[in-house]
Amino acid sequence: MLSLLDLRARIAAGTLTPRGAIDLCRGAIAARDPGIGAFVAIDPDPAIPDSGPLAGIAVGVKDIIDTASMPTQMGSGLYDGWRPRGDAAVVARLKSLGAVALAKTTTTTFASSDPTATRNPHDPGHTPGGSSAGSAAAVGAGMLPLALGTQTAGSVIRPASYCGCAAIKPSFRLIPTVGVKTYSWALDTLGLFAAGVGDLACALAAITGRDGIEGASGDSPRIAVVRLQVAEAPSAEAEDALARGVAAAERAGARVSDLTLPPELDAAWERHSVIQDYEGRHALAWEYTNHREALPPLVRAHLDAGDAIAPAAYDDARRHAHRARRVLKGLFDEFDAILTFSAPGPAPATLASTGDPRFNRLWTQMGVPCVNVPVPGDGLPVGVQVVGRFGGDGRTLAVAGMIEGALRG
Amino acid sequence: MLSLLDLRARIAAGTLTPRGAIDLCRGAIAARDPGIGAFVAIDPDPAIPDSGPLAGIAVGVKDIIDTASMPTQMGSGLYDGWRPRGDAAVVARLKSLGAVALAKTTTTTFASSDPTATRNPHDPGHTPGGSSAGSAAAVGAGMLPLALGTQTAGSVIRPASYCGCAAIKPSFRLIPTVGVKTYSWALDTLGLFAAGVGDLACALAAITGRDGIEGASGDSPRIAVVRLQVAEAPSAEAEDALARGVAAAERAGARVSDLTLPPELDAAWERHSVIQDYEGRHALAWEYTNHREALPPLVRAHLDAGDAIAPAAYDDARRHAHRARRVLKGLFDEFDAILTFSAPGPAPATLASTGDPRFNRLWTQMGVPCVNVPVPGDGLPVGVQVVGRFGGDGRTLAVAGMIEGALRG
Repeated sequence: MLSLLDLRARIAAGTLTPRGAIDLCRGAIAARDPGIGAFVAIDPDPAIPDSGPLAGIAVGVKDIIDTASMPTQMGSGLYDGWRPRGDAAVVARLKSLGAVALAKTTTTTFASSDPTATRNPHDPGHTPGGSSAGSAAAVGAGMLPLALGTQTAGSVIRPASYCGCAAIKPSFRLIPTVGVKTYSWALDTLGLFAAGVGDLACALAAITGRDGIEGASGDSPRIAVVRLQVAEAPSAEAEDALARGVAAAERAGARVSDLTLPPELDAAWERHSVIQDYEGRHALAWEYTNHREALPPLVRAHLDAGDAIAPAAYDDARRHAHRARRVLKGLFDEFDAILTFSAPGPAPATLASTGDPRFNRLWTQMGVPCVNVPVPGDGLPVGVQVVGRFGGDGRTLAVAGMIEGALRG
Repeated sequence: MLSLLDLRARIAAGTLTPRGAIDLCRGAIAARDPGIGAFVAIDPDPAIPDSGPLAGIAVGVKDIIDTASMPTQMGSGLYDGWRPRGDAAVVARLKSLGAVALAKTTTTTFASSDPTATRNPHDPGHTPGGSSAGSAAAVGAGMLPLALGTQTAGSVIRPASYCGCAAIKPSFRLIPTVGVKTYSWALDTLGLFAAGVGDLACALAAITGRDGIEGASGDSPRIAVVRLQVAEAPSAEAEDALARGVAAAERAGARVSDLTLPPELDAAWERHSVIQDYEGRHALAWEYTNHREALPPLVRAHLDAGDAIAPAAYDDARRHAHRARRVLKGLFDEFDAILTFSAPGPAPATLASTGDPRFNRLWTQMGVPCVNVPVPGDGLPVGVQVVGRFGGDGRTLAVAGMIEGALRG
């Protein structure tokens, strides 16, 4: 993979120019993307700033995120050739930091569940996951050092796990979603894909202007291992990855214990789709009302389900989520981080499904930071997920980095 | 003014067709708008549904709200001729209820403070208020029975008070803001303007699919009168309107007592602009980074201020807001509603300012429902503001309706 920190170090040392770093990505894309299909557009001639904390960093932008210089097509024929007037807030911010929005990456239609044609860079017969399929595949294949995704259920952490790259879904609204197509305003969260945890920390600190995110302490954390028994059990590969994550955390000095989540969190988990589908039906009212027949089957089924949800059921789900967030906040008085599954297993051997977000949707609903740490192994990639307290993105990354280091070392 | 309930009753009785109701509005616009300037676009040939709970209701849509059939120009030359692909969620919803999005109404640039050319329908030398200038003026002048606005500080309740119409800023996100230009994602709230409180209740119940909003009980409420001493005192006209509101509430059977807000609410009030300006700078990153010189002076100054706010100061303001919301929730165990000023006085005698939102911004930050009730009198319009608990929009409207009835009666 292309490491953001490594590229930045070479640029700082004068052995690589920003333009040279962008050309590295172009070369990797030319070599690898024909077998993967991670992109829907590549800017032939973007401005390449000479300076800035992210100068020389080419970014992949999920195609539900507005860009003025490239089409933004939402993975839907309804937006064929659509050109927003301006950049989304996060894209404008990245450009002002010196980064280059080099390409738009594939997305499932409106970031729901209908698969893209993108292939897993580790095995073309397997899904890269979704909905941020192209962003995960582009970073996992070593074509880009940084990519933007969004997560409403499990659309950042799961594809990162499947594609073998690091990723963070930060605290809710830490990165503003202005200029990002809305599916669920209570859930949609912008996230980042990069080669490693340190790369994520550097990028997130720069994007948010919060220096403390980089270099936060991961020392001697108290870690709770959560198996989320409310969800169907994961595969042996996921259990093995979690066991290796636990062993690595202990080697690195963490105090690790098992935790069964209180029932309030199970109750919230059970109601995630009520919030997602109800809000999706309202957010996509224009598309659903005028173009329902043009929608692919999975998003259409989600919106049909949302259409049948009464406001009282939605309110009830929101109250459960609110209660669960309070309970979870209390748990983080006893633990610095939760270690759990990133996905039910390695990427499924199909291009007809993007996999299952059942180990992600609770944390999205809680608004807490989640990091995927790839677990080195022989087969297809599997990651583990480090979950932290709301607003504790730096500490969460630090704990994830400590585990990553022990896994590699 | 044109009453939504009255138009609906005439349509139900067969004495008016939906098309006839739309034509009534066109006639009123032709007669009155030349002296007011409430509109930036009028759809010459919209679809006019024959049925639906809001059939025959012409709606004015603030020009930061996406419409597929009319340009959406944000009050800014940067969006000259801009045509979104689809309708905002609330516009699509209104159309599916049978309403007609007849016109786009003037807005200050990006719903900030630089005045539009719109005039107050009660005196052309006075401001209609802002930022939802055209929507308030259109309803206040009797040109439309319903209009959409947004409030980030005081952009719905204040112009309604100035223009003499009823308005509601509902609970935060009760109406989704998808497809509405973002200024502050923590504050921006869609609201409604109509002739009277009953009209608002009918429209809000239909838009949200929450029947209970219409016909909620306003019986024997406990009302706290809040003068918001942290803010500069209002004019004698505003004090007089509040006194008349109190007397009307008592006549209608309310138990009324004075309340000095706890210091947590004053602390939140003082930090509203930190949240607004910080988020505005991030939400409008593309505009600010690429076109700062093209921005009019007041929004530019707000964004310059936002550019100087550190994340820590923003986080501190958000924590104060969070704390204040908890304290306010506790107060609503003792009171059903707060009665307070809608604005510091009648509309200022200028077109160079949209007035002062100091009696609005706390409630926007708290996310609680606010209703402007016009107080009948001889001079320029002045209203009073009824504030309710989060999610208690129906009850808040019922209390407001009770006061409105006693004021008229």
